[in-house]
Order: sequence, then structure tokens, then C-alpha cells
Amino acid sequence: MSQDLSPPKEMNGAESVVRSLHGAGVEVCFANPGTSEMQFVDALDRTGLMRCVLGLFEGVVTGAADGYARMAGKPAVTLLHLAPGLANGGANMHNARKGRSPMVNLVGDHAVRHRGYDAPLTADVEGAARPFSDWVRTASSAEGFAADAMDALAAAQSYPNKVATLIAPADLGWDPGGVVAPPPMAATPVPPVPEDVRKAAEMLGPETVLLVSGSVLADPQAVARLHGIAAQTGARVLAPTSNRRFDRGAGRAGIAKVPYPINLALETLAPFTRAVLIETVPPVAFFAYPGRPSLLLPEGCEVLNLAGTDGDGPAAVAALATELGATPHVPEATLPPVPQPGPIRHETIAAAIAHALPETAIVVDESITGGRDVWGATQGAAPHSWISLTGGAIGDGIPLALGAAVACPERPVLTLQADGSAMYTIQGLWSQAREGANVTTLIFANRTYEILKTELFAVGANPGRSALDMLDLDRPNIDFTALAKGMGVPAVRVECVAELQRALSAAMAEPGPMLIEALM
Amino acid sequence: MSQDLSPPKEMNGAESVVRSLHGAGVEVCFANPGTSEMQFVDALDRTGLMRCVLGLFEGVVTGAADGYARMAGKPAVTLLHLAPGLANGGANMHNARKGRSPMVNLVGDHAVRHRGYDAPLTADVEGAARPFSDWVRTASSAEGFAADAMDALAAAQSYPNKVATLIAPADLGWDPGGVVAPPPMAATPVPPVPEDVRKAAEMLGPETVLLVSGSVLADPQAVARLHGIAAQTGARVLAPTSNRRFDRGAGRAGIAKVPYPINLALETLAPFTRAVLIETVPPVAFFAYPGRPSLLLPEGCEVLNLAGTDGDGPAAVAALATELGATPHVPEATLPPVPQPGPIRHETIAAAIAHALPETAIVVDESITGGRDVWGATQGAAPHSWISLTGGAIGDGIPLALGAAVACPERPVLTLQADGSAMYTIQGLWSQAREGANVTTLIFANRTYEILKTELFAVGANPGRSALDMLDLDRPNIDFTALAKGMGVPAVRVECVAELQRALSAAMAEPGPMLIEALM
Repeated sequence: MSQDLSPPKEMNGAESVVRSLHGAGVEVCFANPGTSEMQFVDALDRTGLMRCVLGLFEGVVTGAADGYARMAGKPAVTLLHLAPGLANGGANMHNARKGRSPMVNLVGDHAVRHRGYDAPLTADVEGAARPFSDWVRTASSAEGFAADAMDALAAAQSYPNKVATLIAPADLGWDPGGVVAPPPMAATPVPPVPEDVRKAAEMLGPETVLLVSGSVLADPQAVARLHGIAAQTGARVLAPTSNRRFDRGAGRAGIAKVPYPINLALETLAPFTRAVLIETVPPVAFFAYPGRPSLLLPEGCEVLNLAGTDGDGPAAVAALATELGATPHVPEATLPPVPQPGPIRHETIAAAIAHALPETAIVVDESITGGRDVWGATQGAAPHSWISLTGGAIGDGIPLALGAAVACPERPVLTLQADGSAMYTIQGLWSQAREGANVTTLIFANRTYEILKTELFAVGANPGRSALDMLDLDRPNIDFTALAKGMGVPAVRVECVAELQRALSAAMAEPGPMLIEALM
Repeated sequence: MSQDLSPPKEMNGAESVVRSLHGAGVEVCFANPGTSEMQFVDALDRTGLMRCVLGLFEGVVTGAADGYARMAGKPAVTLLHLAPGLANGGANMHNARKGRSPMVNLVGDHAVRHRGYDAPLTADVEGAARPFSDWVRTASSAEGFAADAMDALAAAQSYPNKVATLIAPADLGWDPGGVVAPPPMAATPVPPVPEDVRKAAEMLGPETVLLVSGSVLADPQAVARLHGIAAQTGARVLAPTSNRRFDRGAGRAGIAKVPYPINLALETLAPFTRAVLIETVPPVAFFAYPGRPSLLLPEGCEVLNLAGTDGDGPAAVAALATELGATPHVPEATLPPVPQPGPIRHETIAAAIAHALPETAIVVDESITGGRDVWGATQGAAPHSWISLTGGAIGDGIPLALGAAVACPERPVLTLQADGSAMYTIQGLWSQAREGANVTTLIFANRTYEILKTELFAVGANPGRSALDMLDLDRPNIDFTALAKGMGVPAVRVECVAELQRALSAAMAEPGPMLIEALM
């Protein structure tokens, strides 16, 4: 499509916003527009300045914007419709926010003069935005609209990245007087490396855990330095359960994660009397449980925050390595044995994935319980990026994969998708088909909210039929191949390892979307 | 399942809430629970006091609770999970709220002691609830938890009905000390009939519109009285575009609605210099448009509010009829001619539905543009209840139908479902299959957000390929029969009137769910 880069003498507010966002480097708009966003649809159409990706549900839109940002390293813009449309996108705004992934949401509201009349769609848009945004503003004039959008973009790109939501009364979009605004200044400089480097170095030893997340994990050199530090001091390096992005695989050093299940998490961290944190906070249980602590580090554990979540983790790691004279180290990682033919189990699906993963793949992980062995098995797989659920709001995998594929069309995407979670944003498969996204969705079909059964036992219940009915998905069984085909995505069901291997190889070799339902 | 009606000596907070809600007449729980609601799942299971209906997405849960309440005349309770889960249910809470349909939401939050740690799912639950609730409270002790739930129920059942959201930190559910609370007092008495009856009677004439909604429309006798009043005075009776419930069909008087499209709406109301309102507010455009007013009644129109949305509409109608000496009147309504064989068009699908509708059917209307002729055509159809989208937040039809079928298992449900809107809560088909709900979903497959094309023209655009791409759903086409079968609902696609008639007859004769995709 031809781009119209020369702003006309007169333009409406919507066009000034589109032109300003484009001028500041925003290239993609994920949208589920309604009436109050029609002037944006019109401006995007007339200018041809952005790639527009339609989602059939707002959770697809915000999740895709998150996946895009994690892989492109810059935000997309979303178009959402009033308070209910925004709420529909809220869960994946939450995930982006917890992952510190940048996002700019443009939410249409009623025209200013229409607000007082309590029209059917009237509700508190700012109120709906605030729990899931770091920055919220309602634009107030066509003239200032683009400048507001640049403030939203600046907020999104400030360090650490944020979710910024700009609410746009419809008349500001169609009113004349729009003024293109200059791109925001570069992101706030990150704070200098802290002065606690020597203290951190002195704390390291076999009873010390080095907990790292954030930008460190997307920097293989920083991770190799951490392994050098660990080799020299005997400290253990761990990442939190949830992380924005991890670049790993053969030739790169891996890091184990704090497990999700509360007892395993406590057990993993029990040996440590000291903890040094880099771009993360003291690890916390996902949920509270009767008789279990909320904080996962042992009581009395000495904690040093070497670099905060707003700090420069890789610089802190480099300074620590220099202080210790440690050299980067990449531990040998091997692939698991090729899985034997037979039923699909946690270990065999993990091994099959590890062997099938092509170079430069992007793995999107919302496998919850079903994929528990995949992380370990893929450390020796071909180099890849790993992005996963960060805020615990399930329904993120299919949208994240869509956004990642839009950001990196040359890289194959493999989504490890739990079946229960898949159903929250299943509509994203249609957008994958429409965009020809090179995504393979692997459904871990255990036909249950398996994780909730564990949780039910964890609160001390002895579940009967009615409780299990609330957690089982097998009445009726969901046929994911039918759902995929219904939305234009080719699909196959596999019931044994050999079928799984064949399907994975075929999917990785073919461009475009594909779904594999693996019965476990 | 056996019910355990005798409360134990000691119980936890969750059990006290379940027992109290049941004691106050709440019989159904629509749920999409997570970890923080496990003690409710356990209490529901152990006591066997409620029917539990699982939704795979929270919008299904809240929409079903709305449909249940509209047909049962009392609220169900929902179980939702933290701020993101609540947000997922927000759009259909909004629809219920705008329709003044009662709902009690129980939203699990982190345990009180876990709140300060910013666990991944931590967010402002009260903030997320407020834009979509009339009443919000966070419970603060196991002892007071059931009393809080009774306050929520009282709020939901106050007049007019409300959406009440009670947030429940997880530890209050599992802590001992729960105390069963007595049912709330009966709903606040509705205000007496206003004293403006004589004035209203004097205002009625050929230039007067009588706008009525709320409980009047579910009361065929009140509607017949309105027709008597109209016949005697020459006034015109109209209902707003969106209404909670309308009991109509052969032998009952009908009422035309103010049309949705702004120009048609203005045209319909242009003749009137006086308006008398009963259980409704002055009609407002769904959206503002450049050059069009927000209020739909002509400027200078004299407006009398005979009974507010918190008033007793049927009593006001009765008083007005007495004042005028008008007798109830049911205008003759005829069925449209049996449609001729041929392609499926607006008129032919409307006629086919009118002839197929069985006695006591419940029609759920989210047909948007595709079903525009069905309202008129079905006035002479077998007596039925009509429930429709009230808050403009699309994605309500499939869930409303689920809830209506749970409330009235002996009544067949027919959902008139636009294709674009269907995709927001398509997961509800699975719950329909699981519950054996007697619902026929008729998809109006025009493969476009047709209404948005109209809206795009209404803001003055001349759309090109990229704009139409954001509004068309035909790349790829969605195969709704595959989606339905994938979730256990039998389905058929029909492409002509004869096929449609056969499919409708078959679906109406069979129990259980069915989906018909009608290509238009």
C-alpha cells in the first residue's frame, strides 16, 4: 500500500495522531474498533502509514501488542472501543504491565458533548483503564491530541517500559485543527550502576542465590557472565517463574526458574541465606495458601537489591563480573534423547519439541502444567527466544504469538498452549490466519484445568463430583482441530509421539499458521 | 445431587456465604473460578446447595447470569477470579447494569496478608469493579463475610435491580468463623404512582409519544392498556431501542421500537411536540455524530416523566388508563406470508423465524443489522419473551441464551446472533453443550461488521481497502458450524430459505443445543 507521508495543511485530530505516532516509529496498529474509533480507521486508511491487524476480541488485540513489543523492542498502538472494549483487553494489558512491556492504547470514548446523556455504552473509561495501565489520560482538544499521544508514547517507552492508555472522545478525532507533534525525547536514561557492587561480590557464595530477570535474560552475554560469576563463587543463578523474554538455547547459557508450585518453590529457595537481586523483586508466591508464607526466600535471608526493576541489569552484571574477575561461561547443554514411540507424556512432548525447534524460533509459553518439562529440555535446542505469561492472567499465548509473528515475520513461532487457557482468546487463531502468521500452536490437551486441581488440594479440599466438574473440560471434549479449521487455520490431532514428531516437523517446514492438538 | 441443608457447628467463610445465598433463594452459580475461589468450589461441592455452571471465559459467566436473571426474575451468583477475570466479565456486567438486571458477583482476591507483595496477579480489584457495578464492597472478615453477601444480594434486588460486586480475599473463604446470615429484607418498596397522572392524560394527543420500557414491557396487560390509551387519544406508543425483556407475540399487544440508525431515529421522533416517559429516560443516540444531535426528541419537545426508571411503570399505566377511562386493547397482528424459496435476505429470514417460533419460546436478540426485520415480523408469532443487548457491549447473545435456558429449561431458546458479535463470547457454546441447554443459535452470517460500515460513512469517510479490511470478516471466512462442532454443539449451514426452514423446524423440535449458520 502506498504511504502518504506529507501531512495536509488541514487535518482532523485522528490524522494528526496517526501521523505523529508513525513519525515516532510506531508501525503497527492492533485494532478492534467500534463507532467511536471510525475516524482512526479512516485516517489509517487514507494515510497508509501503519500495518493494521484486526482482532475479533480485544484480548487478542492487547495480547498481540504485548507480543509485538517483546520481540520488536518498541510498542504498537491498539484501538479499543469504550469502557467495555477496554475491559475486554484488560487481562492482557495486565500481563504486559507486569512484564514491563511497552504498549500505547487508544480508547475511543463518546464525544465530549454526548457524555452527559448516559447513552447505552456510557461508563467510566478512565476508571476501567487505571487498574491495568501505568499512565492514563483523556485527551481534551483536537489541537493537543497528537501531543497527548506523544506523551503516552513517551510514558510507554520510559524505563522500565509501561502500559499507557490515552482516551479519545470521538469528536477530537473528527474535529479539524489536528497538529502533528514531534516524537518524544529518548527514554529516560537508566540509573547508573549502583555502588553496591563490592558488597554484592562479597555476599556471593554457595549459600547465595543471584535472582535475575528483565533485560538481563534477553542478553546472552549477560547470562554467560552470570554463569562465570556462579562458577567462581559457588552462588546459584535463578530467574523468577515469569519473565518477559529469554534468549537462550544451544551456545547460550541457560538459567533455571523458580518453580510455580508453592512447595517446590519453597524447597528450591530453602538453602539460601543471602540473595542478590538484579532487575527483579524478592520472589513472591503466586497465591497465598493456608500455612504457607507469601515470601519465598527463607526467613532471615539477607537481600541486596543490586539493580532494581528500573535499573540497568546487564551493566550491573558486567560490573559484578569485573569486580570478581569472572569470565563469561556457557555451560554445556545437551538435547534430551530422541523420544521413543509411545503415548504423549510430559517428558516425551518436551523432548519432541526440543528436537523440532528450528534456529531463531520464538517460543510462546502458556503451557501451564502440561509443558512443565519443556524449559529444561530445550536448553540445548537451537537458539531461540522464549516469551511467556507474565501477569498470571491466562489467555495470553495465542495473542502473544500473533504479535511476535507480526514483529518478526522471518522467525518461526511455536506456541506451547494449555487447552483451558487457549479458550479465553481462541479468536486469535483467525487473526493468525488472516495475517498468514508463521505460528504453530501446540495444544497440550489434558482436558482439565489441571493446575486448579492442585490448588484445590492445596486449600485442603477433598473434591467430589461437583468440584471436579468445575475443573474438568472433558464434558464435552473440545475439538481444537475443528476450532482451528473454523477460523482458517489448518490443524491436526496427534495421539502418540510419532504423530507428534511428524506434525511438528511439517509445521516447522511450512510457512503460515498451523495447530497441533496433542492428547496427553 | 444431595443437598446438605444443616449448617455444621463450625464452618469457614466460604461455606457461610454459600449457605446464606442459598437460604435467600439463590439457586445457580455461574463460574470461572481460579485459585482464589477454590474454597467456594469446595463449599459448593460439599453442600450441594446450588447448580454450578462452568464458563470457559468470564464474559460467558456474567452474560449467562444476566440472561438467567431476566428470565428467573432473581439473581444468580457468579464466581470470578481477581481483577483480570473481573475485567473479562466487565462487558456483560455493563449490559446487565444498563438493563437493570440483578447480579451478584463474588470476586476472589489475594489473601489479605498477601496483598502487599505485588504477586503477578495483583491489581486493583475494586477499581476494576466500579465502572461496571452499582455496588462494590471488599469483605473484611470470615465472620462478617455472609452478612456482606446478603448486603450485596439486597443491593442487587433493590428497585431498580442492580449489579453488586463483593470482593473476597481468599483467606476469608478458608478462615473458620463463618456465620450464616439471614436473607435480606424484601426489596425497597417502589415509589407510589406519581401525581402527574392527570397532567400526563392532558398531554396525550396525536403529537404525543408515550415512551415506555422496564417492567412495563414484560407485562402484557400493561402493554394492552397502553394501546387502549393510544386508541383513545391518538398518542403513539414506542419503546427504546434496547430493553431488558419484552413479553409479546400473538394475543399480546406489540410496541414498535425507536430505530438504532441515527437518521431513522430522528425521523421517527420528529413528529412529536410532547413526550410522556414511563420507566425510561429521554431517548439518546447510541453515539454522537458530526452534525447530529445527541438527544433524539425534537428540540422544544415538552417531556413529562410519569414514572422514573425506579418507578412502578405498570401502576402508572393503569392509573393513566383509569384517568382516561381507556380499556385494554390488543391490535390484530398477522404473520408475514410464508417466505418463498430463494436466497436468505432480511425479509425472508424474518418470515422464516416468525413461522418457526414455537409457543413460549425465548428469543435472544443480538442480531444487530442482520435481524432488522425480525422484530416486526414476529409480532404475530406464537407468544414469546424477547431479551436483547441492553448496554451496547457486543458479545452478549450466546451467554444470555445459556442463562435463559438454565432459568427456564422447559422453554425453547432461539438466539438471533450476528456473526461479528458472536466471536466475542463464542466459548459459551461449550457451556450450552455441557448443560444440554435447549438453545438454537442462528448465526446471521453476513461476514462483515456491517453496522460499522454504516458508521464509517456516518463520520464522512470514503473508505478504501485498508478501512474495509478492518470491518470485513471474510478473509478468512469463519466456519461457525466447525466452531460449534468443536465445542460439542451440532450444527448446519444453510444457504437458501428452504434449507433454513427445514433446519429451524428440526432445531425447534429437538431438545439440546444446535447452531444454524445462515449465509446472507
